[in-house]
Amino acid sequence: MPTATFTNFLDRARTLSDLRAASSLLNWDQETYMPDGAAAVRAEQSATLDTLAHQMATSGEYATLLDTVREEAERGELEEWEQGVVKESYREFERSRKLPDEFVREMSRAQSVAHHAWKKGREQQDFSIFAPSLERIVALKRQAAEYYGYAENPYDALIDQYEPGMTAAELRPVFDRLREGTGVLLQKIAGFGAPPDDSVLFTDFDAEQQLAFSKSIIQQLGFDFNIGRVDLSAHPFCTSFGSSDVRLTTRIFRNDLRSCLFGLMHEAGHGMYEQGFAPQLVRTPLAQGASMGIHESQSLLWENMVGRSEEFWAWAFPQLAAAFPEQLAGLDSFGFFRSINVMKPSFIRVEADELTYNMHIILRFQIEDDLMNGRMCVADIPAVWNQKSEEYLGIVPPNDSLGCLQDIHWSFGGFGYFASYTLGKLYAAMFFNRAVEQVPDLREQLARGQFGSLLGWLRENLHQWGKAKNASQLVNDICGRPLTETDFLSHLERKIGRVYAG
Amino acid sequence: MPTATFTNFLDRARTLSDLRAASSLLNWDQETYMPDGAAAVRAEQSATLDTLAHQMATSGEYATLLDTVREEAERGELEEWEQGVVKESYREFERSRKLPDEFVREMSRAQSVAHHAWKKGREQQDFSIFAPSLERIVALKRQAAEYYGYAENPYDALIDQYEPGMTAAELRPVFDRLREGTGVLLQKIAGFGAPPDDSVLFTDFDAEQQLAFSKSIIQQLGFDFNIGRVDLSAHPFCTSFGSSDVRLTTRIFRNDLRSCLFGLMHEAGHGMYEQGFAPQLVRTPLAQGASMGIHESQSLLWENMVGRSEEFWAWAFPQLAAAFPEQLAGLDSFGFFRSINVMKPSFIRVEADELTYNMHIILRFQIEDDLMNGRMCVADIPAVWNQKSEEYLGIVPPNDSLGCLQDIHWSFGGFGYFASYTLGKLYAAMFFNRAVEQVPDLREQLARGQFGSLLGWLRENLHQWGKAKNASQLVNDICGRPLTETDFLSHLERKIGRVYAG
Repeated sequence: MPTATFTNFLDRARTLSDLRAASSLLNWDQETYMPDGAAAVRAEQSATLDTLAHQMATSGEYATLLDTVREEAERGELEEWEQGVVKESYREFERSRKLPDEFVREMSRAQSVAHHAWKKGREQQDFSIFAPSLERIVALKRQAAEYYGYAENPYDALIDQYEPGMTAAELRPVFDRLREGTGVLLQKIAGFGAPPDDSVLFTDFDAEQQLAFSKSIIQQLGFDFNIGRVDLSAHPFCTSFGSSDVRLTTRIFRNDLRSCLFGLMHEAGHGMYEQGFAPQLVRTPLAQGASMGIHESQSLLWENMVGRSEEFWAWAFPQLAAAFPEQLAGLDSFGFFRSINVMKPSFIRVEADELTYNMHIILRFQIEDDLMNGRMCVADIPAVWNQKSEEYLGIVPPNDSLGCLQDIHWSFGGFGYFASYTLGKLYAAMFFNRAVEQVPDLREQLARGQFGSLLGWLRENLHQWGKAKNASQLVNDICGRPLTETDFLSHLERKIGRVYAG
Repeated sequence: MPTATFTNFLDRARTLSDLRAASSLLNWDQETYMPDGAAAVRAEQSATLDTLAHQMATSGEYATLLDTVREEAERGELEEWEQGVVKESYREFERSRKLPDEFVREMSRAQSVAHHAWKKGREQQDFSIFAPSLERIVALKRQAAEYYGYAENPYDALIDQYEPGMTAAELRPVFDRLREGTGVLLQKIAGFGAPPDDSVLFTDFDAEQQLAFSKSIIQQLGFDFNIGRVDLSAHPFCTSFGSSDVRLTTRIFRNDLRSCLFGLMHEAGHGMYEQGFAPQLVRTPLAQGASMGIHESQSLLWENMVGRSEEFWAWAFPQLAAAFPEQLAGLDSFGFFRSINVMKPSFIRVEADELTYNMHIILRFQIEDDLMNGRMCVADIPAVWNQKSEEYLGIVPPNDSLGCLQDIHWSFGGFGYFASYTLGKLYAAMFFNRAVEQVPDLREQLARGQFGSLLGWLRENLHQWGKAKNASQLVNDICGRPLTETDFLSHLERKIGRVYAG
């Protein structure tokens, strides 16, 4: 029996959750079906809902109620999941009231200016157009870190937004070892000579058939279309309005088979996580991923650990070949597996392969750490970027648009965000290895197109918890050891052996 | 320069409008794209948004602000459209606080019970299953009329919800004359012998081609796809989230060419009204139709006065014949015009033709008037229904599902709603005649596929005003005379001459 105060508090939490779900639906609609001419009014509507949610989540009445349930939690009067709701609500409350209103408005204005400058700078391949507004953003983010507070590194206060509890000091040695390990693997690849031929992926594939095939695959993986759907948008994403309504989007290129297929497996990984939250978490702040990195681990586990594996294609290739018999004539499942795993340094992060991708992240992480600590100034970014790109990837971008201007994140002040992508890769490898240990014939199951055990294992160990456990708790509870890069590196070492020596 | 108080008030009005727009998007999504499994959580989310809007619109703070701007309006300190915003806000405020919370909850419970009983009764063709819960609904609606208040007839308090200011006493003589006139026209039709052959409409038409053709037609009528779109749903509707985002839905039957085409012209008529509100009305309570009847006049003007006219098909038929050359082989535009205008008494209101439709409404209006005034009891509905059906249409439904159980409206207590449908028909004929007077070559324009003058005339005289003028103001301002059935009857008399003597 929940206490009367908690019931009252849960009511507020649910109202907040519903308001945020409505806001998410406005955003989903904007990216999928909204007519172009509605943009201006939609921006107002979204702002209104977000403002209402913010007011509700920072009101004095809410604060008083939150204090009371926190006391009840301390006195042990609440169940475990109720304690979790209170704890996460308090975390959000604390974070949201630390920034003065005037600062939030100032940040919002600076983001708007920076966004336009970034777009223009990227179009004109000229970092100097973006530099002044980026300086402003960096200054404001350093100020934000002061408002949030931190133990030793202001950057930690920003990382915390995406990875609660994670610090730069914890990431740095992991990233250093990952960089070294990646370098070793890149040299190994270079030693193999000619890479596998992947030209088959870039012929011509009917858009509708690509979509139908990709949807069929994710349905077989376990994405539940009774509580989810797939639409098209310019940039793929996953959003949900309660775990009984999870929406994925994808995009289709006729001359690149990878985009729709792997994009949708990736988003379905996010989606199955959201579909798996325990029922009592729905309409509470616990119905979220534990962290960005943990969320990303789920998309990458399905996209890469499963979807780019030799076992998976042993099962799936005949279906793909039946959908595109002409284009794939003469190819077998092993040949297809090799073609989708070519690894090679390139300029653009979002197009990078499993191996070289992390070099893009580590480079950004180091620059962000230096910027946030005042060890580097904005004007030096292009030179530092190019020098690190040369050192880590062996290539130098010919212009800033293929280098330090490629990503949107800094224009909205998303410092601390990039690290989550690589964390997702490391977590995914750790979780997958642990699943293989506990379900010994897991790889054989994948080769038979049986994904139920893996999904069930993830549901049991990870999905159901939502945000009731944080990332390090999950990793420790599941794997019995803290974050490490070794699982990921040995996964890739094995794969490289198959792909390049094959 | 608006006053500071009005600016503050407008802020609230916009917040309310945005919240309601979000609620409308939740509903639109539910009818179009929402996965089935999301129904339960979506119901909670919709309820939360509606509750928030209700709380906001009835709060003491809002009431105080409303009082202040009403005083400013009285002192002449506000512009005309500002006065309109205040007036309509006050009307809504008054109405919404007249019903006690407990009564609203009771009504909501009764509706839920009645909805299930109505469905079951209709399935089993048995009015007695529905009767007890309908009695409860009738009692509650009579109670609601007392809460709302009225001058002479409790029914007026309910009609007012859909047609502000309209009364049963005003409707009764118009409906009586309409009934007589319709009877005369039905006899005239009977005198003509065999009706035109319309079997061509019920062959087989590809669904995608129907949709493409219908969308092309409404685009040419003037529905703006830059600020609107079309989707599929079980029941066609029009909704909007600000007049820059107007959504229509339609449904397609392969063996009935009329449903998608005329359904979409109908909804586009609603949609063009919403797209035409003056910019300053957007995000205020004036960005609505003046009344249900006026809204319906716009859908019917485009569906019937334009879309079922001889002139329209002189232009549109070649396009239709090009889309369906096999099915329409041997038919010409006049033959097609005749086929879509067959008029014949039938049981189901929503399938009735332009002429006999109103008999269905008048019958319901009389029963509602008697029920609300205690002159009739619920148990007598089937007998009265069948007797009136015999008298007005010359046919008696073989069971209650084809008679008094056919419509959902009474199950949610929508007494007063039906009259708006016929009002829409009468207004449409009056507006169209006035347009023809003021744009003398209007019919020739339609025959050339030129709809800009008509739409422009409607924008200028009607659409731009939104709810800033009420229905009788609009009718008087536009037509220079009050509501009458004569325009509608002479429109049909002329049409019958062409269709049946053709």
